[in-house]
Amino acid sequence: MAGGEASASLSAIHRDGINIRPDKSAEEAGTREIHQRQQGIYFGRQGSLETGKAAAAAGGGGGGGFSPRGSKDRRSLSRKGKSMGPATETSGGYGVRKGDDFRMFRTKSSLHRQLSMLPTGKEGGADNQNGDAPTGGGGGGGGGGRGESINQSVPAGRYFAALRGPELNEVKESEDILLPKDELWPFLLRFPVNCFGICLGLGSQTILWSAMTSSPAISFLHISPFINTGIWLLALLLLAAASIAYALKAALYFEAVRREYFHPVRLNFFFAPWIAGMFLVSGAPPSLAPPSPHPAVWCALMAPVFFLEVKIYGQWLSGGKRRLCMVANPSSHLSVVGNFVGAGLAARVGWPEAAKFFWAVGIAHYMCVFVTLYQRLPTSETLPKELHPVYCMFIATPAAASLAWNAIYGEFDAVARTFYFIALFLYVSLIVRINFFRGFRFSVAWWSYTFPMTMVSVATIRYAEEVPTVITKGLALVLTFISSTIVLLLFVSTLLHGFVWGSLFPNDPAIAISRNKNCSSAGKRIAARGRTEAMPHIYDEVRRWAKLSLVPAAKGNTKNKSDDN
Amino acid sequence: MAGGEASASLSAIHRDGINIRPDKSAEEAGTREIHQRQQGIYFGRQGSLETGKAAAAAGGGGGGGFSPRGSKDRRSLSRKGKSMGPATETSGGYGVRKGDDFRMFRTKSSLHRQLSMLPTGKEGGADNQNGDAPTGGGGGGGGGGRGESINQSVPAGRYFAALRGPELNEVKESEDILLPKDELWPFLLRFPVNCFGICLGLGSQTILWSAMTSSPAISFLHISPFINTGIWLLALLLLAAASIAYALKAALYFEAVRREYFHPVRLNFFFAPWIAGMFLVSGAPPSLAPPSPHPAVWCALMAPVFFLEVKIYGQWLSGGKRRLCMVANPSSHLSVVGNFVGAGLAARVGWPEAAKFFWAVGIAHYMCVFVTLYQRLPTSETLPKELHPVYCMFIATPAAASLAWNAIYGEFDAVARTFYFIALFLYVSLIVRINFFRGFRFSVAWWSYTFPMTMVSVATIRYAEEVPTVITKGLALVLTFISSTIVLLLFVSTLLHGFVWGSLFPNDPAIAISRNKNCSSAGKRIAARGRTEAMPHIYDEVRRWAKLSLVPAAKGNTKNKSDDN
Amino acid sequence: MAGGEASASLSAIHRDGINIRPDKSAEEAGTREIHQRQQGIYFGRQGSLETGKAAAAAGGGGGGGFSPRGSKDRRSLSRKGKSMGPATETSGGYGVRKGDDFRMFRTKSSLHRQLSMLPTGKEGGADNQNGDAPTGGGGGGGGGGRGESINQSVPAGRYFAALRGPELNEVKESEDILLPKDELWPFLLRFPVNCFGICLGLGSQTILWSAMTSSPAISFLHISPFINTGIWLLALLLLAAASIAYALKAALYFEAVRREYFHPVRLNFFFAPWIAGMFLVSGAPPSLAPPSPHPAVWCALMAPVFFLEVKIYGQWLSGGKRRLCMVANPSSHLSVVGNFVGAGLAARVGWPEAAKFFWAVGIAHYMCVFVTLYQRLPTSETLPKELHPVYCMFIATPAAASLAWNAIYGEFDAVARTFYFIALFLYVSLIVRINFFRGFRFSVAWWSYTFPMTMVSVATIRYAEEVPTVITKGLALVLTFISSTIVLLLFVSTLLHGFVWGSLFPNDPAIAISRNKNCSSAGKRIAARGRTEAMPHIYDEVRRWAKLSLVPAAKGNTKNKSDDN
Repeated sequence: MAGGEASASLSAIHRDGINIRPDKSAEEAGTREIHQRQQGIYFGRQGSLETGKAAAAAGGGGGGGFSPRGSKDRRSLSRKGKSMGPATETSGGYGVRKGDDFRMFRTKSSLHRQLSMLPTGKEGGADNQNGDAPTGGGGGGGGGGRGESINQSVPAGRYFAALRGPELNEVKESEDILLPKDELWPFLLRFPVNCFGICLGLGSQTILWSAMTSSPAISFLHISPFINTGIWLLALLLLAAASIAYALKAALYFEAVRREYFHPVRLNFFFAPWIAGMFLVSGAPPSLAPPSPHPAVWCALMAPVFFLEVKIYGQWLSGGKRRLCMVANPSSHLSVVGNFVGAGLAARVGWPEAAKFFWAVGIAHYMCVFVTLYQRLPTSETLPKELHPVYCMFIATPAAASLAWNAIYGEFDAVARTFYFIALFLYVSLIVRINFFRGFRFSVAWWSYTFPMTMVSVATIRYAEEVPTVITKGLALVLTFISSTIVLLLFVSTLLHGFVWGSLFPNDPAIAISRNKNCSSAGKRIAARGRTEAMPHIYDEVRRWAKLSLVPAAKGNTKNKSDDN
Repeated sequence: MAGGEASASLSAIHRDGINIRPDKSAEEAGTREIHQRQQGIYFGRQGSLETGKAAAAAGGGGGGGFSPRGSKDRRSLSRKGKSMGPATETSGGYGVRKGDDFRMFRTKSSLHRQLSMLPTGKEGGADNQNGDAPTGGGGGGGGGGRGESINQSVPAGRYFAALRGPELNEVKESEDILLPKDELWPFLLRFPVNCFGICLGLGSQTILWSAMTSSPAISFLHISPFINTGIWLLALLLLAAASIAYALKAALYFEAVRREYFHPVRLNFFFAPWIAGMFLVSGAPPSLAPPSPHPAVWCALMAPVFFLEVKIYGQWLSGGKRRLCMVANPSSHLSVVGNFVGAGLAARVGWPEAAKFFWAVGIAHYMCVFVTLYQRLPTSETLPKELHPVYCMFIATPAAASLAWNAIYGEFDAVARTFYFIALFLYVSLIVRINFFRGFRFSVAWWSYTFPMTMVSVATIRYAEEVPTVITKGLALVLTFISSTIVLLLFVSTLLHGFVWGSLFPNDPAIAISRNKNCSSAGKRIAARGRTEAMPHIYDEVRRWAKLSLVPAAKGNTKNKSDDN
Repeated sequence: MAGGEASASLSAIHRDGINIRPDKSAEEAGTREIHQRQQGIYFGRQGSLETGKAAAAAGGGGGGGFSPRGSKDRRSLSRKGKSMGPATETSGGYGVRKGDDFRMFRTKSSLHRQLSMLPTGKEGGADNQNGDAPTGGGGGGGGGGRGESINQSVPAGRYFAALRGPELNEVKESEDILLPKDELWPFLLRFPVNCFGICLGLGSQTILWSAMTSSPAISFLHISPFINTGIWLLALLLLAAASIAYALKAALYFEAVRREYFHPVRLNFFFAPWIAGMFLVSGAPPSLAPPSPHPAVWCALMAPVFFLEVKIYGQWLSGGKRRLCMVANPSSHLSVVGNFVGAGLAARVGWPEAAKFFWAVGIAHYMCVFVTLYQRLPTSETLPKELHPVYCMFIATPAAASLAWNAIYGEFDAVARTFYFIALFLYVSLIVRINFFRGFRFSVAWWSYTFPMTMVSVATIRYAEEVPTVITKGLALVLTFISSTIVLLLFVSTLLHGFVWGSLFPNDPAIAISRNKNCSSAGKRIAARGRTEAMPHIYDEVRRWAKLSLVPAAKGNTKNKSDDN
């Protein structure tokens, strides 16, 4: 189903990609450095060094210039009902831009790809110097066109500056995006990486039902193993579908994937498919899978996790804009929990030393993430002001650490219990704040918040095996019921949103932010093009810090609403 | 004794509460929204939305207006020897205000209480949204009257802004308080929650002497069990007296209790009575108590600790003004140490799993608090510039963690030793800085600093049981001697201050800060009432950060005195 | 060899010290408070309180004044090819200043030493109040002369403000230093404390080769024990030589040592000699040393470490400019790793309780340092923007913790493995960023980065003993090969730099920064002398914070180069 929609939109893109008309006025007034690489045509007649000045002059001259930036601004204005440029050109240019926009995210042609892959790199470490570095000079300061925005990776700071929300998935109002807001994008561009959260949620359910079926603590319920098999097959199907869809996205819209990879929150979701895979291997029903998986399976699933970790933890440590005190957010737990899930699976696979290795790596970085998140440093821009479902992530890591320790050392000893109880306390601490979890509209991201609860349920079942009292068994049942109910509700919601309302995959503006700040009004635009923009940023910064500090409440009565929960 | 004084002052309040005379001039010039709820009379003739403007106009008009703020300012001026208003009115208004002031903190009448309790909430979680939120609009920016200050809770920022000192118990000079500075307040208003520190200090002594009596390591001293019994009875008496007094305060001056509860430092002392109770249960002499207390006792004492924890840790995490990196201060250890004390008692009661639960919760949050305090983030406003007795709190938590682990697992193993040695090192680290502990005048808060030393002494006795050498026994004796001596000295000091000098309970300005910043001079007052006050705050913030950073020492020669200890 | 050069330069200093000619013009125009204490001559005719004003007036008057500051500025200008003052005076004054400069760092005469030692203190704790406090008033704000810079310790902020580089060993361009840049200083002034890094590197190699010789895991290689003996003798010789040289420096140039002690990075290297000594005791070949060293050896080596720790951890905690969130840098690991090395040696010596004590102290502070470094708080000024060899330090502490735990408890259990695997992961994490380690010119500091690798190698050998598989043995061999090769390469480099190129010990400007900020241009100098300098600092601060935050990349294309590794 997903594949069909994807291929349909794909062909649409191909169609759009063909009818390119060169824009005359753009050639006359400013410069144009749109990388129409598939055609191999370059329109840029003037040197790129003059881009900024020319664009500024054109902007000041009354909108006569038609630089890429100008055209975009005009488009945004026309969306607001005002038109500054000639209407005919606007509509004419619009048809051009429509295909143009989506093509920007298309994977480049083979030649260019080979060239551009060199500085971009795989996940390994080759792009160390180059990750955020704008490769082209860009000429006139802030005057680079839209084409540059695509060629070069978006710096980390832009994500923080342009996006908002606990998942950084909404665009601030002052920002303009590269893709049209008022039409539906191709399916693959709307398929975000956090869709793998669905696989996480269902995959953890397989572990839960597998434990429910086999655990002596819950054996009095006589749960049919077919439930587990059914969930497992469904989860496997969804994981396969999501993997194919995302692989297609990576193949066709590599730029969009790259932008998700540089997104401070989305980055953590790149762990999700591998973790979901490990969930599926762990929770496989005995009738369909061997009791002990082959180590090669573990290697195949853990290798990407390891490479991502080396990459991401290195980013935390080496201190750019992606340093830990900046990017720490509850979904950072996803980049830690993989260690514990992998450690648990390694123990099952029969590699205890590898399990201990990943457990050690996990605990070291969990400590950092936990303390950093608890401190809520004011430098961290992605932490939501109020509690939010994403805080469920807090529960996942200690529960997984507890389970992994249990799997490695074979007993639910003091260490396992300590982590389990930490998870339980955090669970209680979030449950009593349940009113924070209302009032958010459904999104695919909700799925990611179910797997922590499931992990706690599984850990509780293990704990109930160790301490088989009525209280522990009751707790296990209650937690299992809660997590399964939530997953069921989400599943129904997802089906409704996906097939009935068709609103499961809205446009994903987070990947379409422009590389540079676009000011909406013409006057500010001109000013911003000058070199004087350093000062306002300083004051912005000051204002941000001032807000964070202890301002007497007289200033605003509605601000500190969530202060005292 | 305390109860007698309390009831006396109580009747005085009732007397004052009756002779209310409406202040004519206040009705004429400004508005007055003093909530004289017990009489059910409202003098406010103009809408509260106009309060600010009217007061500003009045203030600008030359002091002729007599708004609540104006009257307060005038009173503060007259205290400074200058009088801006007519003297007759001032003296006339004074008599009114005297009773008025204290009544503001009185618990509201039953009808109002029911109404006001709804948004205020118990400790559970109902006041999540409302904790810091000013409920009334307040009108003209900074122009809310005094009545509003009472109805609405004081935002966290105000405590930091208006108070100073490591315990935030002194009012900054630029601040004005709601209650008269020059007369003695009712006893209950002067009875702060950190008086329970006395119970902590004496309660931990009972554990120490109980251990001294029973420990085989110290058995060669043949200490009479009657010492323990005597201390225990005294501690029990004091805990009962303090509990009754504070319960009376809660019943009669609920607003004052609420203000203490929102105070960033005092809040931690709400753990003290329960911890002291657990000390008493643990240290009960064998002749008076069963060897193993009933679990119900543990439940009764631990339930409030648990609820407070869920509340406070949630505040740390959910990130308002009470986030951990803001409020972390050595007394935060009090909110962690309860877990360990409770875990130890749970082990004695026979509930090892509950003990492990609280130990896990404690260790997770201890780690956060420890790292945060060691880092001394510049965002933390409550950390004293110099070392201070409050740093003794640092020792309490690892010592308690060590004892709890020992109680749970029955052996003083690697974990227990690690925590014990951490406590010991911190003890040494503070002892060598002994000159920092001189020169502070006595206050009740000193008591809180004795119980960490006692905890270390108890842990040392346990350690000496495990490693019975001359050195360890000598260390145990020395530490016991130190802590008992300090407690004895403090006890004598407290008796002297309480009964001879009568200065044990001075006025407690920390609970009487105004909700909004009051500027003392008329010119600043007018300016602050306008909307332009945002800018100065930004600069204040900048200045604060600039101060924290590395300013060349040429600027001030006396600043960095404590830099290099 | 080092001693010979040192004594030669020493005599040169004595020679210079004699031919002092009073500078007439300095006496006429400004004041001069150069502390020519050995001669007991004071030229200062005017009170020091007038220094600043007079100098400012002189500076404003066109360079005619010849205050110490003026003369220095002129010298720096003449170095830049411009001369503002009369050339004859410059040259005349130059001869004077040459001897003068070095004498400033000389240990004061006995009378003065006794006076000055009182506030300065040894390492114990006597200088708690006085560490950073400028003792003299200093008079005119920023106008203190050069003499004052020596009498008073340099505040911590100055080091951050004036120096740069990950080791804070380079002077910022805007800064002027007290000693002449264009001539070679006396050897002892060029002998920094981080030369003990050589001893660390070689000392850890002795442990490695001792383990290689004796470990059953590597016994198949049949390594000759003479390699270990040779390295051990060499390391012992170097440690003795470095100790003598540094002792001479402390005796002759006590002020230089004091300045290194207050240097935020260098301070950590004061741990190095003792750690190197413990390495040598641990790695002593069986033919030359008893199998179990005498506890007195351990006491002698561990006592200074303990005292330094109490001092430094107290500085972190007590919150001046040397608070942890400011000074944390990878070399802070040196101040933690001593605990673990000492714990391991204590276990060998037969004092397990002392070993556990230091292990506990180490783990508590390691946690703080680790989390703080991983967070990369923006307040930390010494963290290098990019990865750097100094990050190798990260590996040392967990490896040492693992080895110490193994030594204490006799088994390589879960705790030891956890720390070992953390070290291994960090090793991998740094190795894949190997391109960061290129392009740095050789310096003595490189040696410090070898011992972490060696520690990991030793831990790997222990681990291979526990888990004797081909993989672990191969890993042990590979890591051993890497670390030994790097040490060998460094040894050759050091020999070449030392004896062939003579560039091993360049001038060490880090100890010669002036106490106050010197502005280079005359106009700025005058402004800075006024009291108005507070404002620029605020803005500097704002700018620094603004830079750290998320500035849109449009501002500069070359800034965020290292953002994404």
